[in-house]
Amino acid sequence: MAVRVDLNISLDGFATTTGQTPDNPMGEDWPRLVGAYAATKTFRERVLHDTSGQGTTGVDDEYAKAYFTELGAEIMGAGMFGLHHFPDDPDWRGWWGDEPPFRVPVFVLTHSTRPSIEMTGGTTFHFLSATPQESLDRALEAAGGKDVRVGGGASVVRDFLKAGLVDQLHVAIAPIILGRGVRLWDDLRGFESDYDVTTETAESGTVHLTFRR
Amino acid sequence: MAVRVDLNISLDGFATTTGQTPDNPMGEDWPRLVGAYAATKTFRERVLHDTSGQGTTGVDDEYAKAYFTELGAEIMGAGMFGLHHFPDDPDWRGWWGDEPPFRVPVFVLTHSTRPSIEMTGGTTFHFLSATPQESLDRALEAAGGKDVRVGGGASVVRDFLKAGLVDQLHVAIAPIILGRGVRLWDDLRGFESDYDVTTETAESGTVHLTFRR
Repeated sequence: MAVRVDLNISLDGFATTTGQTPDNPMGEDWPRLVGAYAATKTFRERVLHDTSGQGTTGVDDEYAKAYFTELGAEIMGAGMFGLHHFPDDPDWRGWWGDEPPFRVPVFVLTHSTRPSIEMTGGTTFHFLSATPQESLDRALEAAGGKDVRVGGGASVVRDFLKAGLVDQLHVAIAPIILGRGVRLWDDLRGFESDYDVTTETAESGTVHLTFRR
Repeated sequence: MAVRVDLNISLDGFATTTGQTPDNPMGEDWPRLVGAYAATKTFRERVLHDTSGQGTTGVDDEYAKAYFTELGAEIMGAGMFGLHHFPDDPDWRGWWGDEPPFRVPVFVLTHSTRPSIEMTGGTTFHFLSATPQESLDRALEAAGGKDVRVGGGASVVRDFLKAGLVDQLHVAIAPIILGRGVRLWDDLRGFESDYDVTTETAESGTVHLTFRR
């Protein structure tokens, strides 16, 4: 049972892109930042429900598979569920489709809570106004001995990192310079001292770094 | 004949450390930022004149050797020569020892120029008040068809990168979070679009990224 994070970041440490709109929820730089992950067989199957069998099967896909392995619950910020764009729509069900890839309880952090939403395939969204520690306690309870993943966005992840709650941080670094967005590493000087770090390069040029304690 | 840069940076993109003093010219975080390079056989021989044959001989050392291969001239900022700490000492000869590792003409960028200094082993320091392009023209002329290296520090390198003057940028990324210093990547959004990038991981955990155009 571990608390895990997986994030796509740029070489200059931006873990989110700018220019999000309801029509383009991931923002203008998303294809370049997340392209290698989105090209994997696992992403195409699990997130896009593409059963054609297409997609990459190398190092990037090994990490993509691990995202969902032993997953018992997920925590995400309001932005990842789309509440920033649709704050007043009580029928908004997120932009993860009718059958979200999580297939476990997902705890969405928001100051304005709403009733839980049960989706197809095992995912249920719960809405919590809570500190990182409180939400983690809820998620661990729901995870039934499996892992809890803090999915994002960058500022939510940083809150959990700063609070010392994360056992394993995996960053997939795209060799691009974004120059704007939310910086993952701010206020984390010396973070590595509590962790062992391993590095692996994918065929796509993505650098995978994993901090484990 | 190419214009090259090699820099050690942290995972959060800081290419220089803080807390430099005359007694500790590299600053408080230098050992962690540059440790893998300083441990190489090439660094020990070429910079420290250690002839014991000790030092690492793996991937980090391959890059260290390349620093000096085909080098025809070097450009550096005033800080790398120590002029920030000893601005009024006309006898200051840099902190690279009596026999600096460059063995070629070195052009030090400074607003208060001084007479050239010829050192043992082929290095001559020249002091220029010039734009990046002007200093590069001088260095290329002195390099006699070989490469020119822009040695640092980070803000000098960034000026050359922003001016589009660099053909090859190699960064050795240490998996540490510094949280302060000079950020290499600021104002370089989209820099990668003119370059091909390759990635290699060293035994030390250092990630070597090379942008070539």
